[in-house]
Amino acid sequence: MLTVNAIAAPSATEPLVRTTIERRDLGPRDVLIEITYAGICHSDIHTVRGEWGKVPYPLTVGHEIVGHVTEVGAEVTLHTVGDRVGVGCMVNSCRECENCLAGHQQYCAKGNTGTYAAVDRDGTVTQGGYSTHIVVVEDFVLRVPESIPHEAAAPLLCAGITTYSPLSHWKAGPGKKVAVVGLGGLGHMGVKIAVAMGAEVTVLSQTLSKKDEGLGFGAQHYYATGDPATFETLKNSFDLIINTVSAPIDMGAYLSLLRLDGTFVSVGAPPEPLPIQVFTLFNNRRSFAGSSIGGIAETQEMLDFCAERGIAPQVEVISADEVNEAYERVLKSDVRYRFVIDIASLR
Amino acid sequence: MLTVNAIAAPSATEPLVRTTIERRDLGPRDVLIEITYAGICHSDIHTVRGEWGKVPYPLTVGHEIVGHVTEVGAEVTLHTVGDRVGVGCMVNSCRECENCLAGHQQYCAKGNTGTYAAVDRDGTVTQGGYSTHIVVVEDFVLRVPESIPHEAAAPLLCAGITTYSPLSHWKAGPGKKVAVVGLGGLGHMGVKIAVAMGAEVTVLSQTLSKKDEGLGFGAQHYYATGDPATFETLKNSFDLIINTVSAPIDMGAYLSLLRLDGTFVSVGAPPEPLPIQVFTLFNNRRSFAGSSIGGIAETQEMLDFCAERGIAPQVEVISADEVNEAYERVLKSDVRYRFVIDIASLR
Repeated sequence: MLTVNAIAAPSATEPLVRTTIERRDLGPRDVLIEITYAGICHSDIHTVRGEWGKVPYPLTVGHEIVGHVTEVGAEVTLHTVGDRVGVGCMVNSCRECENCLAGHQQYCAKGNTGTYAAVDRDGTVTQGGYSTHIVVVEDFVLRVPESIPHEAAAPLLCAGITTYSPLSHWKAGPGKKVAVVGLGGLGHMGVKIAVAMGAEVTVLSQTLSKKDEGLGFGAQHYYATGDPATFETLKNSFDLIINTVSAPIDMGAYLSLLRLDGTFVSVGAPPEPLPIQVFTLFNNRRSFAGSSIGGIAETQEMLDFCAERGIAPQVEVISADEVNEAYERVLKSDVRYRFVIDIASLR
Repeated sequence: MLTVNAIAAPSATEPLVRTTIERRDLGPRDVLIEITYAGICHSDIHTVRGEWGKVPYPLTVGHEIVGHVTEVGAEVTLHTVGDRVGVGCMVNSCRECENCLAGHQQYCAKGNTGTYAAVDRDGTVTQGGYSTHIVVVEDFVLRVPESIPHEAAAPLLCAGITTYSPLSHWKAGPGKKVAVVGLGGLGHMGVKIAVAMGAEVTVLSQTLSKKDEGLGFGAQHYYATGDPATFETLKNSFDLIINTVSAPIDMGAYLSLLRLDGTFVSVGAPPEPLPIQVFTLFNNRRSFAGSSIGGIAETQEMLDFCAERGIAPQVEVISADEVNEAYERVLKSDVRYRFVIDIASLR
C-alpha cells in the first residue's frame, strides 16, 4: 500500500481537510499516476454533501485528473513511465456486458466504477483525484496530448467529454443549430466544442452578464432565459439543445425551442422529477434525452480533437487550501469557468 | 353547397344524432368523395366531449375515411372519378413552412388543418367523416389500394399511419427489439406493422387477456404490465417502445426497459404532464419522444406497404345508429380492434 497526501470530506457537513489516503499496490495491469492538477466539478460538491445519496466518509473526490505515469505493472502495454495521462469519471467497468463490449463503458449494465465513492472490482472504496497519486487499471487511463496546457487538461476529463459525447452522438456540425443552456464549466466547453464541430451555436443563459465571453468562445448568438421574449423569438429553432443546468427548468418552454426532429439532451439534472407535457413532444417529433460522460475510446477521441483544434477550458488554478472557498464560489456560479487544484500544493 | 347526411354531436354532453351538414362547392383542386366507411378513433371521443379543449358544436368527427371519388375540380390531376381514396387526420396545411416543404405537413409550423373541428384555410370549420360525402383538396387525398378490404382500409388513415411513422422513423426492422404498449386500435396495428418490418415484437398490455390475439398478430412475446416482475425481466431490453396508451403511466418503469440508445415514443398522451426522473434518461442514453400521425407522402407509403404485405386492421363494422353505443364500448376497451361505421347506413 502507498500512503499519499489528499484532501477529504470527514462528513456531509464539515469542510474538506488535509489528510492521507491509501492507494493499492500496483497490480500487473495498473498504472501509478503522480497527479499534477485536479478539476473541481459540481458533482464533487453534490457527492461530498450527500445530496446524491449516501457515501462513505472520509471521502476524497475529484474526477478530472491529469498527471504523469511514475510506475507501471508488469503487464501494462498502453502507457509508460513519464507519459502525460488523465483519468476521468470512471476507473473500471464489468467489461462483459454488451455496452462495455461496444466501448460504452459509461453505460455498463452492472454500473461503471466511479472514480470516487464507488466500490471497485476488488472490494475497496474508490478515492478521487484531490490527492498526490492514484492507481488505475491501464485501460481506464487516457493519453493527454502535450499541446493541451497541463492545468487546462484536467476539466476535459469530465466537463469536456460530458459535452463532447452528446454533441458528437447527435451530430452537431455544419448546418446544425445548437443551443447550450448554462455557461458554466460544462457549458463553456459545450460552446467551444460545438463551434469547433462547425455548428451554429447559441448560448441560453439566465442573464446577459457573460455575453461577451460566450461570443468570445465562438457562439454566434446569446440570449437571456430570464427574458420571456427569448422563448418566443427562438421557438422551433434548434436541432439540438445541450442542457448543462442541474436546477429544475421549465421543460415545456425549452422543448418548444426544438425544430423538426430536434433533441433536448440533459447532461445535468435535478434530483426531483421534471413534469413533461407529452403534447409538446408530439409537435416537431421532439425528443428529450439524457447523456452521461462518454466511453474510454470516445474520451481519447475528445482529447485528441481538443488538442488538434486548440480547445481548452478556461481555468482558475487554486491551491489545496482554497478548495472549501472554491466550493462556495461554485455554488454561487462565481467561477470562470473551472477551478483546478494545483496538486503541487498537497505535496 | 352540398347538403349531406351526417352524424353530429350537438354538445359535449349529448349523444351523437343524425343530421345534415354542408360541404363546400368543389374548388378547382378539390375532390368530392362519397364515403363508404369511417373508423372511430378514441380522439373522436375526446374531441366531441371537449376533453382536448373547446370545439364548435354541432360537430361531425371522424378522420379515418375511405370512399370513392365522385367528382373532381377542373385542375385536379392526382385523382379521377371512381378512384378508391382515403382521407386521414388532416385536410390542409400552410404549404410554405420548412416542415410542409419537406413533406411533414403534420408538423406544419402554422398548424395543419385537422379533418374536423379546425378552421380551414377558407375560414370554414372542418367537419369529419361520419357523413356521406366530404370535399378535400386533392393533395390531402390518399390512394387506397384495391387489395385492402374496403372497411379495413379506414383505420389505416389514423391508427395505421400513427404507428407506421414512428416505427419507420426510428427504424424498426431486423435485429431491433420493439415493444408496443397497449393492444387497442393503434397497438394492434403497431404490432402488425413492426412484425412486417422484421422487428422482434413484444406486446406490453395490462393483463394477458389478449395474449393469443397479440401472438396471432405476429408478436413474439407478450407481457402483463400489471405484473411488476415484467419490469424486472425486461429491463434494458428494447431499442424502441411505442406507447399507444393515453392514460398516465409510470414513465420511470417504462424508460428503464430501454437498452443503449433506445427511444420511448408516445403516440398517445394524457392531458396532464408526466413526471420524468432525468437520471433514468442518463442511463443507456435513453430518449423520450413524441410522434404525431405522418406526412401525406408517408401515409401513401404506409398504405402501399400494408397492401403489399397484406396487413389490415381487425374491424367491427357498425351502422350509424350504433355509434353512441360504440363510444361507450371504446371507453371500456371493449372493441377488437376498431369500430368502423358503414356509411351506407347513413344514406
